[in-house]
Amino acid sequence: MTLTPPETTGRDPVRIVVDWRPFMTDHTIMAADVSDGDIDLRWSDGRQTRFNPFFLRDNCPCTLCTLPLTREQVFEIVDAPADLSVQSVSISASAAPSAVSDTVDGPTLDVVWSDGHRSAYPAGWLRAHATDDVSRAERRAMAGQPFIWGAEHADGLQTFDHDAIMHDDAALRAWLAALRTSGLTLVSGVPTQPDSLLGPAHRISHIRETNFGRVFDVKSKPTPDSAAYTSVNLPPHTDLPTRELQPGFQFLHCLVNDATGGESIFVDGFAIAQALRHEHPEHFATLTQTRMTFWNRDAHTDYRWSAPPVALDAMGEVSEIRFANFLRGPIDAPTARMPAIYAALRQFQAMTREPRFRIERRLSPGDMWVFDNRRVMHARREFDPQSGPRHLQGVYVDRDEVNSKYRILSRQGA
Amino acid sequence: MTLTPPETTGRDPVRIVVDWRPFMTDHTIMAADVSDGDIDLRWSDGRQTRFNPFFLRDNCPCTLCTLPLTREQVFEIVDAPADLSVQSVSISASAAPSAVSDTVDGPTLDVVWSDGHRSAYPAGWLRAHATDDVSRAERRAMAGQPFIWGAEHADGLQTFDHDAIMHDDAALRAWLAALRTSGLTLVSGVPTQPDSLLGPAHRISHIRETNFGRVFDVKSKPTPDSAAYTSVNLPPHTDLPTRELQPGFQFLHCLVNDATGGESIFVDGFAIAQALRHEHPEHFATLTQTRMTFWNRDAHTDYRWSAPPVALDAMGEVSEIRFANFLRGPIDAPTARMPAIYAALRQFQAMTREPRFRIERRLSPGDMWVFDNRRVMHARREFDPQSGPRHLQGVYVDRDEVNSKYRILSRQGA
Repeated sequence: MTLTPPETTGRDPVRIVVDWRPFMTDHTIMAADVSDGDIDLRWSDGRQTRFNPFFLRDNCPCTLCTLPLTREQVFEIVDAPADLSVQSVSISASAAPSAVSDTVDGPTLDVVWSDGHRSAYPAGWLRAHATDDVSRAERRAMAGQPFIWGAEHADGLQTFDHDAIMHDDAALRAWLAALRTSGLTLVSGVPTQPDSLLGPAHRISHIRETNFGRVFDVKSKPTPDSAAYTSVNLPPHTDLPTRELQPGFQFLHCLVNDATGGESIFVDGFAIAQALRHEHPEHFATLTQTRMTFWNRDAHTDYRWSAPPVALDAMGEVSEIRFANFLRGPIDAPTARMPAIYAALRQFQAMTREPRFRIERRLSPGDMWVFDNRRVMHARREFDPQSGPRHLQGVYVDRDEVNSKYRILSRQGA
Repeated sequence: MTLTPPETTGRDPVRIVVDWRPFMTDHTIMAADVSDGDIDLRWSDGRQTRFNPFFLRDNCPCTLCTLPLTREQVFEIVDAPADLSVQSVSISASAAPSAVSDTVDGPTLDVVWSDGHRSAYPAGWLRAHATDDVSRAERRAMAGQPFIWGAEHADGLQTFDHDAIMHDDAALRAWLAALRTSGLTLVSGVPTQPDSLLGPAHRISHIRETNFGRVFDVKSKPTPDSAAYTSVNLPPHTDLPTRELQPGFQFLHCLVNDATGGESIFVDGFAIAQALRHEHPEHFATLTQTRMTFWNRDAHTDYRWSAPPVALDAMGEVSEIRFANFLRGPIDAPTARMPAIYAALRQFQAMTREPRFRIERRLSPGDMWVFDNRRVMHARREFDPQSGPRHLQGVYVDRDEVNSKYRILSRQGA
């Protein structure tokens, strides 16, 4: 059962609901076959893509299976017959009319199922979601890679202008791209009135609230509930490793900085993890496998979470750093494992002190650091609270929000 | 080097900073030895606990190593000598004076390190953090187990009175204990003014905000951005599987319910996972290993996250359910894996429909469901928006917040 396009089926086209994204493709489906129950497509560039029938039935975009108003699926695959099979398959040259404002680009693959249901799949959608090895590898390769940085990149630190990101979507998108790629940016020209950091934060989305508030003020306090609110040196750390989900991006805005000391230091936790993996693979393995507990405790709250300091994603790539020595609790591991754990921990701490990884800057009023708190460890040198006032404000915005906004700006072509 | 208590060392006691918790123990350290560099303790009940020297040095509670003001660690273990060893160990019968208001209960283990530093560890702390196999197993056994429920428990659904949890810490703690254990509670007597659900929520902590707002109104809308805001049947689901961290606890408060239909249905996702593990182990394994993508997309936002529908914790126990069929995107897995994946998915969906797992109730004004959104799947029957008004309000509060508040109430003995 091989059909070559263009060919019109002569029947009523299936009304379909397309994604917000158009899923363009330059390639054409040359032939569609059924083989061992799967649907094989051969494309104009020679690629062969095999689709499982349940996968296709599950993703039927017709207006019975997908609610046009919300573009959400209402069909449940459990309601397909257990012996579901393809009755016929064909390629339609004319685009099926869309139930929503978007239009379908180019031809569709039309399927009639054994229970009589009909589905029409745009070629672009099929190409974008094909589950053959080549297509899946191509998608993985298209995912952005992090830019790993160290001291040698200090002069190239990416700086963005407050007014530009507030008013220009292209500038906003460039800033978010830098946050996603390098995880460390400086925004300059931020007004020095309190809460001015909310402007850029709300350009992205809502704030991630914590028990330290929505906007937190960083200055030394007489009765601090965190070392952050004293004047002491803070070694490199991520904020709130004590929560199941560490806040994604941290905004740290300088309103006043007349005190001696208090310089900001940043290290790329991914760079340290990469170096550790290369130079001390046994320590790297230990830090990805050993859960450490982090605590925030005061008279009114008691937050705790346990996780490895270095987290890996499903592909085995480093996805997160979780570490704050001053919030770390006793390690709960067998006594016999302690020598290996402490050797790894000490090596990791030693590397956070190595100059090759460190970028140091002094913030001026109107400057704002924005960085990936789940990747970039930040440190603060001790400052002298008697030498002058120092006032920073901070907020958090989660990775989900940055990623959503970036996708929307990309969808709009900003 | 065996010493039997009580014995005073005659030297100045080390000033120590204790945890917020007193770490009581009924057991006494009978002897302390150094063996192969580790410290072995023998207790009055016969238990033997071996401590690694780096572990003990890392947890030194003296006022040099721990900041009394914040009770946070300032010592970094990388600064201990690589050849750290125990110079002498002894047991002190008198409690060391505390740098903070708490007092140390009972005797301490006093250590002099090879670099001259001195540490004093309360016996209760040592007993609570011992890393021998028996002590670690004892701690794991003390962790609460979930109460797994099904249809047969419908009449035993735990109900709590709004005024009691608002004003009585013991009632609040009982409610939080139920949320942690069974994951499903009903709060009755909530005022039917809008935003009244914030009272009980703020008794715990702050709200988890999402792009649907801090408080979201559930009623059918003319231009819905989610199936929740239509009148259609919603199959069992967790809310916002589209976010890296699904909201922990959901509050769903009924203000008006004059519409026909719209009954609430709850299923314990842990019960389904447990049954699946027992009855279809191959499907259970598939659902813990296959990442599925969930999407929330409209004109302004595009949230996506991929994770297995059934998550396991470090001990291999089910820790989270993540599923909403109407938010599920195309599965990105090899074609050859699709038959196994769809067999597992269809079985899981079929089980969410089985009466043995379902509790169904109709909400009355003043009722409020509060449930673990990362465990309990909720569903809604279709309702007739022409038959009368229906207005629910919802908020989310994360697991971290519930756990923190529960610990504080437990610390205070509520």
